[in-house]
Formats: sequence, C-alpha cells, structure tokens
Amino acid sequence: MDFLTLSDKYKTPLYVYDLDKVKNQFLNFKEAFSGRKSLICYALKANSNLSLINTLAKLDSGADCVSIGEVRRAILAGIKKYKIIFSGVGKSDEEITEALELDILFINVESEQELQRVESIAQGMGKTARISIRVNPNIDAKTHPYISTGLHENKFGVDTQTASRLYLYAKKSSFLDPIGIHFHLGSQLSDLEPISVAAQKIVEFARSLLALKIDLKFFDVGGGIGIVYEDEKTIKLYDYAQAILNALKGLDFTVICEPGRYIVGESGFLVTKVLYEKYTDKKRFIIIDGAMNDLIRPSLYGAIHKLSVYSKDKLDNTKQSIADVVGPICESGDYLAKDVLLPPLSPGDLIVFENAGAYGYSMASNYNTRRRPAEVGLENGKDRILKRREKFENMVADELRILKGDMNGFE
Amino acid sequence: MDFLTLSDKYKTPLYVYDLDKVKNQFLNFKEAFSGRKSLICYALKANSNLSLINTLAKLDSGADCVSIGEVRRAILAGIKKYKIIFSGVGKSDEEITEALELDILFINVESEQELQRVESIAQGMGKTARISIRVNPNIDAKTHPYISTGLHENKFGVDTQTASRLYLYAKKSSFLDPIGIHFHLGSQLSDLEPISVAAQKIVEFARSLLALKIDLKFFDVGGGIGIVYEDEKTIKLYDYAQAILNALKGLDFTVICEPGRYIVGESGFLVTKVLYEKYTDKKRFIIIDGAMNDLIRPSLYGAIHKLSVYSKDKLDNTKQSIADVVGPICESGDYLAKDVLLPPLSPGDLIVFENAGAYGYSMASNYNTRRRPAEVGLENGKDRILKRREKFENMVADELRILKGDMNGFE
Ligand SMILES: Cc1ncc(COP(=O)(O)O)c(C=O)c1O
Ligand SMILES: Cc1ncc(COP(=O)(O)O)c(C=O)c1O
Repeated sequence: MDFLTLSDKYKTPLYVYDLDKVKNQFLNFKEAFSGRKSLICYALKANSNLSLINTLAKLDSGADCVSIGEVRRAILAGIKKYKIIFSGVGKSDEEITEALELDILFINVESEQELQRVESIAQGMGKTARISIRVNPNIDAKTHPYISTGLHENKFGVDTQTASRLYLYAKKSSFLDPIGIHFHLGSQLSDLEPISVAAQKIVEFARSLLALKIDLKFFDVGGGIGIVYEDEKTIKLYDYAQAILNALKGLDFTVICEPGRYIVGESGFLVTKVLYEKYTDKKRFIIIDGAMNDLIRPSLYGAIHKLSVYSKDKLDNTKQSIADVVGPICESGDYLAKDVLLPPLSPGDLIVFENAGAYGYSMASNYNTRRRPAEVGLENGKDRILKRREKFENMVADELRILKGDMNGFE
Repeated sequence: MDFLTLSDKYKTPLYVYDLDKVKNQFLNFKEAFSGRKSLICYALKANSNLSLINTLAKLDSGADCVSIGEVRRAILAGIKKYKIIFSGVGKSDEEITEALELDILFINVESEQELQRVESIAQGMGKTARISIRVNPNIDAKTHPYISTGLHENKFGVDTQTASRLYLYAKKSSFLDPIGIHFHLGSQLSDLEPISVAAQKIVEFARSLLALKIDLKFFDVGGGIGIVYEDEKTIKLYDYAQAILNALKGLDFTVICEPGRYIVGESGFLVTKVLYEKYTDKKRFIIIDGAMNDLIRPSLYGAIHKLSVYSKDKLDNTKQSIADVVGPICESGDYLAKDVLLPPLSPGDLIVFENAGAYGYSMASNYNTRRRPAEVGLENGKDRILKRREKFENMVADELRILKGDMNGFE
C-alpha cells in the first residue's frame, strides 16, 4: 500500500481501510456457512463508518447493532431492516420503541426486566416484538477480561434456567414472539474449544425449548473470532463453521453470526507521521502525530499493534534501536507501541500501525481537543475519502452558540 | 443539588458542573499565591467546555493548552492571549506557526528537535518566539503510572544537562527568547514531598541559568494537585504554595501554576439513570444509561468514583447489597463502579457519580454510536445548558454526505 502518497494526499493521522480485504473477509465468512441457511450480521461496534458498512450491505450483510444509533447507521448504509438485530444489556425505552417501529429482524433480550419492558412497549404500540434471548453459557473464553462476556460474573445474558422461564413467558405473551436464541463468549477469541462447547450446550438447551414448543428459527452464535495482532493462534473459519454446524445437526435453524473484528480488523491501518525523536538517559522516544485518542487499544487493553515505517529517504536498518512510540497527549498512558526496534527516523517519516480496522476509530475521542482522523478506503486500486478529518469549528459549534447566548432548546 | 429535577429537564446521562465551586477553587488557588506575582493557567485538558472556561476567564485565569485546538478554545472563551501557554511533547509545524501568529505568552518546549523547529518557524515568520523549557526533574511523583510524568522514563521534558544546552542555544538565537522554565510531575498528586524536592531542584537549576545571563521571568510549576476520590490524603494549597514560594526565595520570578483537576474535578457530577437491575448466580448488576464512553476513568485507570442514589420513591436502605454498576456498552470493561453497596433500585432512579468534572467529558467518545452527554452548569442557584447532547444527525453528517457522493475536498 502506498502510504506515502496517501499521507501526502490526506494528511495524518489517517485511518486507511482496504475495502477489498473487508469484502473478502466477509465473503469467506459467508462461504464457510454456505452449506446452510445463514445470515452474517456484521457487528457495527467494530467500525461503524457508513461507507464501510455500505460495502458490506452490497454483499447482503446483515447488521448486529448495540444502540439505536447503530441501527440507524445500518439502515442509512443500506442494510435491509429484516437483517438487523439489536443487542445490548442496556436498551432504553426510546431505543426499544424505535427498533419496534423500524421493524428490524429481532431484539436480543438480555434480562428479565428488559423482556418485560419490550413486552409493555410492544403492547402500547399494538405490535408483536420478535425477540431472541441471550443465554450466558458460563464458559470461559480465555480472552482479555474486558472483552470476555460469557461468564456469569459478566453482565451479559441470562442463565439457562432464567432463559427457560423467559421463553415460556414470551411464548404466552401476545406481544412477544421468541424466534431466536443467542450467545456470545467474548471478543478476540483464539481457541475454538470454548466456542464448540458453548455451541453444544446452547444447542442442547435449544432442543429443550423446541420440546416446549418454543418455535425457534434463528441460532445466533455471536461474534468474537480473533485475528493475529502478534503471534496469536487463530481459529480457522472452516473449523469454526464445522463446529457450529455439527452441533446443530438435525435442527432446522438459520445460523446467525456477528463477526466484527474478523471482518475489518486486519484491513485497517492507522497512518501517523513522526514529529520528533528524543532520548532521555533511560529511553528513546519517537513522537508521532497519532495518539491514544485515535487508537486507545494499547492504553486500554495493553494491546499490541505491529507497525512498519515508511520514509521518502533511505532508512538505515543496520542502526536499529529500541524505542517507545508515543503521541502528543499529556499523559504517560499515551503510547501506541513500547519497546520496538526501529531505525533512526526523521520528522515526516511514517509509522503505520496494522490491524487497526476494528475498535480503532469507533473508540476514538477528542481528548486534548484533538480532531479525530480522516478515514480513507481503498477499493480496486483506488483511494477515496470515507470520512473527513474533524473540523475544529464543528467541534465547538454548539458550545460557542451557547456561550454567545444564541441557543434554543436542550436537545 | 436537585439531580431529580435536572435529570427531568435535561435527560440523562448528563454532566452537571457546580460553577460556583469551580470559581471558588480557582480563587483559592489565586489566593494561595497572592503574596507574589503569579498567574494561574487553568489546564484545559481537564475540561475544555467553553462556558466553563469562560467562567474562569472572567476571574482573569490564564490557560495551559496542549494542542492548538485548546489554544483556540481558550481564546474563544475569553482568556487573554498573553495569559496562554502552549505545552506538549508533540506540537506540529502548523500548531507552532499558529501559536506564534496568535502571539501567546510562550511555547513550552519539550525536546531539542522541537526547539529547532520553533526557531526555524519563527525565523521564517520574522518573529522571535518566547519559549520556556520543560525540565524533567527525574522525581517519582507516586501516582498512577499513566499520569506520572516527571521521570526520565517518561516522554516529557528534557534533563537539566540538555536544558542548559538548549537555554544557551536559545539565548544566542535571534528568533528565540527563553523567558520561562517549567516542570510538571504528574497528575492526581497526593504527596507534597516530591513537589517540594522538585521545586528546589529546578530553582537551583534556574539560578545556574541566571548566572549564565539567561533572563528567566516565569517559573512554571505545572499542575497535578490531587483531589479526594476515595480517601486519598490531599495536599493543602497553603502548604503547596509555601513550599514553592520558599524554594523561590530571593528570586524575582512570576510563578505560573497549571491546575486542572483541582479546579474542576470535585465540581462535576455524571448523572445517570437506572435502566435495569439483574442478578446472575454470581453477581448483582445495576445497568445504567451512562457508560465507559461517557466516563472512561474507571476502565482506563481503575479509578473509583463515589456515587449516590436518588429516587422519586423511598429507598429502602435496610436492604442494601453489593452490586456492580455497569453501562450498556458491549464489553465487560464497561463499568462505572464495582462492588458497591446499594439499596434495591428501580428503573428511573438516578445514580450520580461524583468528582467527574476533570477528565470526564474531555475523554468521552462515541463508542457504540452513543451520543456524548449534555453538560449543564449551576451558578448562583440557577442551571443552564453548557453543551447540548450530541445529535445523531451531526454525528453521521459527513459520512452520509460522502456516502451519497456529495463531497468536496478532503479537509
Ligand atoms: C454480542 C456481540 N456480538 C458481536 C460482537 C463482535 O465481536 P468481534 O468484533 O470480536 O467479532 C460483540 C463484541 O463485543 C458482542 O458483544
Ligand atoms: C504539563 C501539564 N500541566 C498541567 C496538567 C494538569 O494536571 P492536573 O489536572 O492534575 O492539575 C497536566 C496534566 O497532565 C500536564 O501534563
């Protein structure tokens, strides 16, 4: 990829997405489940850029959404309403109402109170809400505790006993239509075993529900397949699909998958520019124009992003030394890489962080009044802008209007 | 504070700032240094809301800024240009140029390369750049490693030896005017000792510079005074000021302080609403409508924010039990409090997090396509909006324009 040309054209810091790869990853996923009725619902939380979602919409992707904002994004980007599911532990009444109005595929219910709320809102609207219930399989997915979600000490889903009760309740309600069952173990999973065990456990449970005449149609296995940041082992898509399809033998369910990171993670690059190099008696620092506000994964999860350097001049790789790559933000937590071997670098050289397509821009902030980067897509050898760099004027527009006393309404 | 009325009026999640307290904290700081020429430069990074800054501007506050965006905010909010300083390890050429054009008090230089860059930009503009140099005293401030900045393993400042060299260089340059010296040990400091030692060390160093006929006028002691989140001991302002003033005895410097957290931390509240309560066999969860995107300090630093509950109904405090307070975001890292004792709560009850005025909104993101909260100020018993809740339409405006093919220019 010609990052030097791209950085000249779009400036830095810059997110670059290889949309051809995004499409490929999606098609691989689809292919793995092609022997079976299936729906791949891309998890927008990983990266919710409208043009990127649109690329997937054209391949008939569905969408896994966790806020009404994400549902709206999915629709704006061209994903069909009947392919959208709405998950999450904390849906507000307004969100539930709008989701029912929009008539999406189903709402993924995560607690007893939520089920009651969905029912009463549906009743108020004279509608029947299609729902799925997220079952917490209590299985350790062995990933970072912040993104592990399938244990009873996590806030997600309900245990099988509670789920049974909720399904029976929903079946009797005129305003609820339980059509799906859902589980999700966590993100960045590198081990098939827990998924396999969970799938079998939930299938067994689903059979018990069918026996109770709960007419399930969708079996939603969540997302979570990991990618290679450093040297993690990965789950082969084929094996993953086989494990799930084997567990489902004899059952006529449509399989739903909610991959996020797998679809977009490896396709994204954060392109940054070297501003300064400095040495203390303890360390070498490369100061770049990207920071934790652009990519918080290293600070927040201790995540490692491989990097590569690009220069208009010749780099002297015989003179490499260990350095920390840090941003301009005023805290020591602002680093993007630690203890990496780098040649001497000059201002203007590029440092490009790999695997930044998922949970990169979507978690970006304006800390230190930094503008969020531009996003660029590459497709068929052509680059195009997907989102412009934020403008200072837009960032302060509302505050300024209020400061000047020119304001109407609170919302 | 009547959070129930405020939440009815402005909805939740909501940041509320007690502006009277903000003013008081600022005036206390000013008072502590009143025996001496001094300038209190509020550190915008803690909270950069324009109306909040404006409140301080009216009290003649200066501003400590770490990006050109913050410099612009300071000016928009009414802070005088000659009271603005610009710090930070990673200033871009554009930022330096604009700072020189704006003619702010001085640029706080953090590395040799930066000094050269400032010089060459000033030369190109036919200007003389007023500068200060950030000296890294190599003293452990004993705070969270992410916000500790005064050690040589941190990216900040230069050691005294390098600083000497840079001052001498600057003195000879026609385009640099070294008028200040700066140090900053870290944030949320609870121990006076390291500050005291650092001040003495830097004063001693400053004396050696004076002997070399470097005509320093400003002695900038940074920010960092901590507040009480749990039961931290705190530094008394009086003691702090005395320690610094004692160190400075016999020297005719204007003292600059850069407090952020101390000014706004305790004045801020994050008001959230209970959405659901749920139990697993392991835990009790209170799910609220606020999340890690609104206040990332618990996830990022393991920070503790005290909370209190408010209800329109009577709360039964005889039936308290331990709970985690978590948000709607789809990861287990999304919690705002862990293992807190709470009475039974109902949807609509409020959970208010204290000490959320600093590094709260300023670090907020749109993760999960969540809109950032509204900000409200209380002053003289009256509430007023300081920033409206973000609108979905604004969040996607640029992406949508691009998706529809209606775009002009990249920036
Ligand atoms: C319910 C659910 N589905 C899907 C995903 C997507 O996970 P990933 O990006 O790891 O595929 C998540 C991520 O946290 C999730 O919570
Ligand atoms: C140089 C500098 N000054 C001032 C501050 C403000 O610190 P605090 O909010 O702890 O007072 C910081 C915070 O990191 C800083 O880096």
